[in-house]
Amino acid sequence: MSVREQKLATTPVWPEVAAAMTPYLTHHWGNPSSGHAFGRPCGAAIVQARAAVAELIGAEPSEICFTGCGSESDNFAIVGALEMEEARRRGAGGAALPRPHVVASNIEHPAVELCIEALCAAGRLDATYVPVDEEGLVSAEAVAAATTEQTFLVSVMHSNNEVGSVQPVRQIADAVRALRPSVLVHTDAAQSIGKVDVDTRALGVDLLTLVGHKFGAPKGIAALYIRSGLALPRMIHGGGQESGRRAGTECTPMVVALGTAAAIARAEAAPLREHMRRTRDALESALVERLPAGSTRVNGPADASRRLPNTLSIGLRDVRAAELLETLSERLAASAGAACHANAASVSAVLRALRVPPEFAVGTLRLSTGRHTTLEEVALAADLIAEEARRQWGQGDGAAGKVSDSGPS
Amino acid sequence: MSVREQKLATTPVWPEVAAAMTPYLTHHWGNPSSGHAFGRPCGAAIVQARAAVAELIGAEPSEICFTGCGSESDNFAIVGALEMEEARRRGAGGAALPRPHVVASNIEHPAVELCIEALCAAGRLDATYVPVDEEGLVSAEAVAAATTEQTFLVSVMHSNNEVGSVQPVRQIADAVRALRPSVLVHTDAAQSIGKVDVDTRALGVDLLTLVGHKFGAPKGIAALYIRSGLALPRMIHGGGQESGRRAGTECTPMVVALGTAAAIARAEAAPLREHMRRTRDALESALVERLPAGSTRVNGPADASRRLPNTLSIGLRDVRAAELLETLSERLAASAGAACHANAASVSAVLRALRVPPEFAVGTLRLSTGRHTTLEEVALAADLIAEEARRQWGQGDGAAGKVSDSGPS
Repeated sequence: MSVREQKLATTPVWPEVAAAMTPYLTHHWGNPSSGHAFGRPCGAAIVQARAAVAELIGAEPSEICFTGCGSESDNFAIVGALEMEEARRRGAGGAALPRPHVVASNIEHPAVELCIEALCAAGRLDATYVPVDEEGLVSAEAVAAATTEQTFLVSVMHSNNEVGSVQPVRQIADAVRALRPSVLVHTDAAQSIGKVDVDTRALGVDLLTLVGHKFGAPKGIAALYIRSGLALPRMIHGGGQESGRRAGTECTPMVVALGTAAAIARAEAAPLREHMRRTRDALESALVERLPAGSTRVNGPADASRRLPNTLSIGLRDVRAAELLETLSERLAASAGAACHANAASVSAVLRALRVPPEFAVGTLRLSTGRHTTLEEVALAADLIAEEARRQWGQGDGAAGKVSDSGPS
Repeated sequence: MSVREQKLATTPVWPEVAAAMTPYLTHHWGNPSSGHAFGRPCGAAIVQARAAVAELIGAEPSEICFTGCGSESDNFAIVGALEMEEARRRGAGGAALPRPHVVASNIEHPAVELCIEALCAAGRLDATYVPVDEEGLVSAEAVAAATTEQTFLVSVMHSNNEVGSVQPVRQIADAVRALRPSVLVHTDAAQSIGKVDVDTRALGVDLLTLVGHKFGAPKGIAALYIRSGLALPRMIHGGGQESGRRAGTECTPMVVALGTAAAIARAEAAPLREHMRRTRDALESALVERLPAGSTRVNGPADASRRLPNTLSIGLRDVRAAELLETLSERLAASAGAACHANAASVSAVLRALRVPPEFAVGTLRLSTGRHTTLEEVALAADLIAEEARRQWGQGDGAAGKVSDSGPS
């Protein structure tokens, strides 16, 4: 979250990250795959960045494949796993089999959900979406129970981008493999990196998505963790970059940015999380305190250990959240729907999946705090939001003094 | 091409481009699709960049879809066109038809060739590769004649990355459509932008690839031109970015870089091309003059109007080009194979397709000049290369004085 009083107070591309990129824009411009003196510093910088990303998630450098965005990583995991399965079936003469089958939760990011839907529409896939409970959590047993003999992939996000619920990915992997050892497990950890522990070995996953702009790098750089030994077919064909797994001349400054952000996220893990939790909790308390009892509802898990420390999804009863944010848009960066694709008037699919009551769902704000958010900004944000909520309630029946302790009707 | 005497003399990310990106790394970091004050300047910058790219290639802004790299654009064009064809056939109950068919030249970039090959291996596609002549040019009539009733796509590069041959894309589009009006035409114009006229309307293509790092923007940003009215299915699913054609939160600094480079390439078109031609011709003359008659061979079209103005593919008889470049690697940025994937010991597929004699093929250097290459650098590069060639010839039979006017044996 960012609040601006006079000018922009935060820099969500972390300053150290922007500084680390600059030389690779202005001086070291070579092709990292070339052997000459112009390419070599770029190749070395990429090796270092890959090691930093690997270390952050308990992986080997060779298991990190850089991509252009988180959506590409998610699509790559799903399409790649499907093509492996299709090739296996061609080899086994399995034309007569039912379609390959994938299991996901019903609150996946659109990059997972819409990729699956497109493959279903093309007749290449069947899918089962396991519903989450009212806290946004999925049961490992339910995921395992949804697999069939045709299931080749389970994809459940590590944590949700709207309500911050952290899924039991390790338990999911264990439960699925106990039943069907050959099924691959993918998790979209875009929201989790830098906020909670994400260790590929501890999670037992085969594929994991991470995204730079969720932890201090610019938009436009991401990675897919591909477990050693898993021969995922490439999604983008061409040159032999990324050990033949993803073609495209490497963008050294962006890769350096991701590596720098990963090194900071690792070095500052404990204070960073503590800072996010403190500012997020302060924001939550301030809003709950400033507004009448019964007029607010925090979405997501009640158990703090199962919710991201930076995320606050809070419903303001009978408030029009989109209008509130529009009014504050010069001063507050937040969203009412999912941030990547705003302007949709309807309640988000995630809030519907959590069965958030409509009087809170339309008033739900998606707020988050970060490395550079201050307690002063948080207090100001709560003031701005509370003031605007009261204004809406006042307008509702034409009387500004309507809001009582029992909350707006 | 870059030669360094003391320090790096050129900046292939054009300085104006790097300068234009910087504010979007450090200050304007918002999500361009968000409505708040932090996202809005980014959204506006993307609108401006899209217009500049469109103007450069005679397109409408709505026809420009930003992607992460040229390989992604090429793959997107081919996979998208195939999925359109597959959907059409499903609708027409065409399961019993022969496979969909694509026609390409036999010197396409690996991003086209290997994408086609992967789809062929998956049983989704058949392909015909039309051979080029000894100058690296393909005949429009031969391309049209290679189409069949199953052909849905023709993909012929606008110009070749190794030898600079400019293909008759307009004639290809006309010849193909005269025979089969529904076939889509894609061209990979990665090498051509900024060097020769590339106008989508004049070319009559449906799909066109362009790549930022070939004309002054960093690696990691590219675009696919998608003709208005062509409902190409997306390759990366997720958010609704790029008018629903390519998911992934937009990387504003990279998009701004592409737009800035496009504006410069358009504003400076005539002097830029003249500068590239003058320095390239000077390099070619200097090498031919410094080396014995009969010991050099320029690959590609003899007709200057059919060769890119910046490209020089020159074979040095009986020289080991890879070894020469290794020796000069501290001072000269060039490659013996195709730049994106060096270290392959074999002669490049393009030189083989042109039937370059082996005594020249292994000695072929791929050199190019750019906006910041100087005549002094070019003279120095010719000196370095000629000296190293003579050293190799001298070693060949143990006598340094061996090279005669009739050239090395």
